[in-house]
Amino acid sequence: MTALIECVPNFSEGRDRTLIDAIADAIAAPEVMLLDIHSDADHHRTVYTFAGTPDAVEAAMLRAARIAVERIDLTGHRGQHPRIGAVDVIPFVPLEGITLHALAGRARTFARHYAEATGVPVYLYEASALRPGRVNLADIRRGGYEGLREAVMTDPARAPDFGAARLGAAGATVIGARAPLIAFNAYLDSADVTIARSIARTIRESSGGLACVRAIGVQVGGRAQVSINVIDFRRTSLYTIMRAVDEAARQHGAAVVETELVGLMPQAALLQAGLEALRLPPQAVEKLLERRLGAVTGNYREVVFE
Amino acid sequence: MTALIECVPNFSEGRDRTLIDAIADAIAAPEVMLLDIHSDADHHRTVYTFAGTPDAVEAAMLRAARIAVERIDLTGHRGQHPRIGAVDVIPFVPLEGITLHALAGRARTFARHYAEATGVPVYLYEASALRPGRVNLADIRRGGYEGLREAVMTDPARAPDFGAARLGAAGATVIGARAPLIAFNAYLDSADVTIARSIARTIRESSGGLACVRAIGVQVGGRAQVSINVIDFRRTSLYTIMRAVDEAARQHGAAVVETELVGLMPQAALLQAGLEALRLPPQAVEKLLERRLGAVTGNYREVVFE
Repeated sequence: MTALIECVPNFSEGRDRTLIDAIADAIAAPEVMLLDIHSDADHHRTVYTFAGTPDAVEAAMLRAARIAVERIDLTGHRGQHPRIGAVDVIPFVPLEGITLHALAGRARTFARHYAEATGVPVYLYEASALRPGRVNLADIRRGGYEGLREAVMTDPARAPDFGAARLGAAGATVIGARAPLIAFNAYLDSADVTIARSIARTIRESSGGLACVRAIGVQVGGRAQVSINVIDFRRTSLYTIMRAVDEAARQHGAAVVETELVGLMPQAALLQAGLEALRLPPQAVEKLLERRLGAVTGNYREVVFE
Repeated sequence: MTALIECVPNFSEGRDRTLIDAIADAIAAPEVMLLDIHSDADHHRTVYTFAGTPDAVEAAMLRAARIAVERIDLTGHRGQHPRIGAVDVIPFVPLEGITLHALAGRARTFARHYAEATGVPVYLYEASALRPGRVNLADIRRGGYEGLREAVMTDPARAPDFGAARLGAAGATVIGARAPLIAFNAYLDSADVTIARSIARTIRESSGGLACVRAIGVQVGGRAQVSINVIDFRRTSLYTIMRAVDEAARQHGAAVVETELVGLMPQAALLQAGLEALRLPPQAVEKLLERRLGAVTGNYREVVFE
């Protein structure tokens, strides 16, 4: 079977429609499936989701990066989201026919080539990390563009894995292979960002909260938002996280009004949330009509009742 | 496109493995997909779910019914579930390529043939009903086998639609086409069946509760259970029902321990529950990775991350 991978790069541009479209055009290719574009003016970033063979995806990524490196200037960039580069992070995700380990190796090779081709220094993270302190994105991005611009020249511990230890207007890029991540944001019925920050501290792993959960509190469009990354939904389910957010919000006299996905989520994560909310056992997922029909016919598809 | 329908007959036998298997064998045919068998010793019934073309499904149903009518004797039958026949109810569900209206007509023709072939009187229900008072299964089954055996001979309003007005040991059968129904049971942390009955009254439409919800309270395996049928999950979602059950149970100082599906459920119902529990908008279902990949490749299937 041909390997299928996904790439979910974050670009530090969420407002300039022309530039956002130009990056999408650069990704487009007959053998690349552009699955989603999520632009956010407050965070001032755009997340593209595309899939294909590793070769096709890497080539598309490099084409898109060349445009962003040339046209995004971080020296005047303001946004709600921590970032260190015009192309801030390039996560590669194995979907089928390739292991995370194998993709981690490919991503290292790609990263070296990327640094040479663009002149942008690269940090390897997650499964591709070469240093223990660089597994987590937040550790690499500490201080943001402004902080790293100083630190990269003075602190050997913050030297990039590839490229020169100097940040230009396009900053640096974090590259690596990782398991599928789910990014979702919970909006509160409050504008008080300190509540969102407190909820984030309560639920995230780094502050003693839930395993595989990262979270920060931000203010978006006048509303307090808890911005959440779920590293492995099979270890900590979205429903468990949702209940923890609800409970933490309640203790502040606040409530979650709505949530949104950033990028895409695997179907299994949503089915899992449904099962847990309905108090059904995990194996009840085998009682979906579509799954039974698919097992018999070999053609799995959703039934649309007439 | 060839029409695809589902049939979900209830047989009044949940304990005799040999007979349960014999009925399954009678359903089996190259062009019939037997998708699920749910036997329950307490309810003393078995629900088979199978699918295929209308012709193949009707032929399989008749083969299975002949066995049940010959071997199940309702005169000594005791179970938690109301029933009037060895083959208690035969619902036909349109899946693809046929409307509910067209299937309702087919089911009437089938019912006439069924009554002639088996000698069992038939009541038409749901979309196939010929009298307004026979749309709901509960109205037809009122009094159970024992009650109907008397009433069918004395009360013209309870005469069958097809067949003689006389119940033998195999009782009567309710037949009709209906929209996909979801049957699920919620077990309480209590053996008190009066609590389950009270919860059922609170949530079911006939007592002023939720639209499209039917429910009864029963005792199963020493536990109180709310047995729920959802007539149209798009009108009242499973998550809404679950919260209503939780709230009603709480008012009795009880709680739902776990739930179970009887038969199968459409995938859309579980995805909907997940979206609502996570406070995501309905259109977030379009952000499933599999759906986007399916839209591009024309091949919708679940991605299993390696």
